[in-house]
Amino acid sequence: MRPVNVGILGLGTVGSGTFTVLGRNRAEMARRIGRDIQVVMAAERDLAQVTLASTDGVSLVDDAFQVVSAPAVDIVVELIGGDTIAKDLVMQAIRNGKHVVTANKALIAKYGNEIFAAAEAQGVCVGFEAAVAGGIPIVKAIREGLAGNKIEWLAGIINGTGNFILTEMRDKGRDFESVLAEAQALGYAEADPELDVGGGDAAHKLTILASLAFGMPLCFSDCYMEGITNITQQDVAYAEALGFRIKHLGIAAKREAGVELRVHPTLIPETQLIANVNGVMNAVLVQGDAVGETLYYGAGAGAEATGSAVIADIVDIARTIEGEPAHRVPSLAFQADAITALPVLPIAQIDSAYYVRLSTDAQASRMTDIAQIFGEQGIGIDSMMQKGEEASVIVLTQITREANLDSALDKIQAKHLVTGDIMRIRVAYLNG
Amino acid sequence: MRPVNVGILGLGTVGSGTFTVLGRNRAEMARRIGRDIQVVMAAERDLAQVTLASTDGVSLVDDAFQVVSAPAVDIVVELIGGDTIAKDLVMQAIRNGKHVVTANKALIAKYGNEIFAAAEAQGVCVGFEAAVAGGIPIVKAIREGLAGNKIEWLAGIINGTGNFILTEMRDKGRDFESVLAEAQALGYAEADPELDVGGGDAAHKLTILASLAFGMPLCFSDCYMEGITNITQQDVAYAEALGFRIKHLGIAAKREAGVELRVHPTLIPETQLIANVNGVMNAVLVQGDAVGETLYYGAGAGAEATGSAVIADIVDIARTIEGEPAHRVPSLAFQADAITALPVLPIAQIDSAYYVRLSTDAQASRMTDIAQIFGEQGIGIDSMMQKGEEASVIVLTQITREANLDSALDKIQAKHLVTGDIMRIRVAYLNG
Repeated sequence: MRPVNVGILGLGTVGSGTFTVLGRNRAEMARRIGRDIQVVMAAERDLAQVTLASTDGVSLVDDAFQVVSAPAVDIVVELIGGDTIAKDLVMQAIRNGKHVVTANKALIAKYGNEIFAAAEAQGVCVGFEAAVAGGIPIVKAIREGLAGNKIEWLAGIINGTGNFILTEMRDKGRDFESVLAEAQALGYAEADPELDVGGGDAAHKLTILASLAFGMPLCFSDCYMEGITNITQQDVAYAEALGFRIKHLGIAAKREAGVELRVHPTLIPETQLIANVNGVMNAVLVQGDAVGETLYYGAGAGAEATGSAVIADIVDIARTIEGEPAHRVPSLAFQADAITALPVLPIAQIDSAYYVRLSTDAQASRMTDIAQIFGEQGIGIDSMMQKGEEASVIVLTQITREANLDSALDKIQAKHLVTGDIMRIRVAYLNG
Repeated sequence: MRPVNVGILGLGTVGSGTFTVLGRNRAEMARRIGRDIQVVMAAERDLAQVTLASTDGVSLVDDAFQVVSAPAVDIVVELIGGDTIAKDLVMQAIRNGKHVVTANKALIAKYGNEIFAAAEAQGVCVGFEAAVAGGIPIVKAIREGLAGNKIEWLAGIINGTGNFILTEMRDKGRDFESVLAEAQALGYAEADPELDVGGGDAAHKLTILASLAFGMPLCFSDCYMEGITNITQQDVAYAEALGFRIKHLGIAAKREAGVELRVHPTLIPETQLIANVNGVMNAVLVQGDAVGETLYYGAGAGAEATGSAVIADIVDIARTIEGEPAHRVPSLAFQADAITALPVLPIAQIDSAYYVRLSTDAQASRMTDIAQIFGEQGIGIDSMMQKGEEASVIVLTQITREANLDSALDKIQAKHLVTGDIMRIRVAYLNG
């Protein structure tokens, strides 16, 4: 069979990593697929920056639009990132009848519905395994490996930078700012770290996972998002004293009234496997009605790890490139005409347990006063402790409706039982 | 499109679980695949034992051979187990042009080469996701999700009964026999537990994983196998004192001289994620040259968890049932003509670190005598401790060739430095 021809857009970190692995493992891949995969073209705005060892036989251009319209290219691999020019390129590639592989989570989370519709109309594939959790084959696991299940919920550590920061805060007792500065120096975090620590990057990925799991359109704008910038060293230590780790988690869950779709710091019991996923590593826990809990762990970023996921998509497309589109796995796991909108629940309508830290004036009656308000609001308390020196009261609630907790905290504020802000972190037990 | 028709052989635990899930999630699956999957026939030797809620529209028979030759059946699902009649049924089904899905690890490990060759000749699929690690989609992850990688090694907790026993021994300080008796009472372990605790079941699964990872024929008879029956409560406690957990691990690794293929108890640093996989759960750690480490975790057994994997295979086949065989993923991940025999290394030729427990006469010089022999043999020692009361010496070696260790232990025996058997457990650091 003739080789399958790939054109790469963007030779930055992931582009170079993908190019390198495609070259190094070319023979191994041919043993798997029964045909050769070759990079015939690559675009990089600034060609002087390209430092690849060997680009023999590859047409290097500085205009990515040349690649998407080149007749020789079968699969366009978009590794530019962002959602401006990348979107135009992907849409143009699809219009030209090219298959597309992308690692671009922002693009898929925001414009996936439009992109997949265009691809369906043209009978081409859009692979995006690399857009979620880097090298972990989580898209394939949900879309195919668990195809016999109703997915009930999933929860993931899907931003490596945030997990690195929280891990360092716990292991070394450091504070948020100093670890963030180190992460930036190490190149984990962007100069503007907002997308990582603010939750936007995790929300992109969670949006994609939720659609794959529940067969709903991508609805990034409905995703609740809370960053880790307010997590203090105190909170990390108190959580640990209670037997929990704080992780920045993306949670998607199907409830009777709708779908929970939320990214926020979360206390997880330290005995849970996912609580022990440390450093820059990612992991996604998926609960299916038949399989129960499964967990997928690996590198969420990095040149070759992300390249691994990009290549898995290329291989899938290469296998069926002459096949019938109807025989392929649909982009969002479900047939296009079976994708059904589901309401995303406002955060006040979720049910969760909570860790609440209140700064008080250290009066002896404060514990009782606070407990009474929780009681009046019908919120059960699992444990409550006072940290003398800091005059902090820590409450671990049972599961309650978030709106209920909001009311209780409003009353506590109104009665001037606290001297400062109230810190509230959701708790997830993740056991079904 | 017309429905895809399934015939199930065996309505025991897994057969009933698969049947139940196929019924319950039928609509959800049709949303995914765009066509219906229906069970049209099922065979059970003793029909009086069938306790399924509803078998309307299903032709129930007591002769499995009727199913494999029924014209209406597209996919034969073999859930009888064992390697006698199951093999005849699977081969007959293939000859009749049926696709086959099986959860039968013994069958695939021992006769897979023959079965896959027959399927290739007939242009039909043989799915066996359920044969390894129950509901975890590990076959798909290695075969497709990591297709861009050279797999360097993998290590798995792939027998739930063994992991349950070792977990209980550690958590509750119990001894092997009492936990085994409980596992039997709970139905985790068979009345004859040899296949679980002796390592045979794990060896079946490891054999399959190694072939998928390295593109080599199945070679079950070359797999080194050591059970957990000799692990004492003492060893579990000493390992813990050294910062390790003991797990029954299957390890497959590609080395220059050949392939390591071995199942044995293993000390793993307690900080490793896989060391924290407890109870009946399974996990497989896979190292690819591009992706680095990835880990897959979930239920390794159970009616519906195993059913989940069976159904994933049914769905894969249903999608491409009218497609070209050349477009499908090959059974052993690599094209049939690209599968290459690799020598399996004898256990004496592996390189490993070791935990060695020696019973001595408690003479003061014993530590020195033993250390000297290790030194003469060129074996580095990471740590050494003497447990006074028990007169035990515990040595943690650095990585050495196993033959070297054998020589050292022979010399220790010859010099009568020990009063009883020597316990030796391999140590795996699993970090590349």
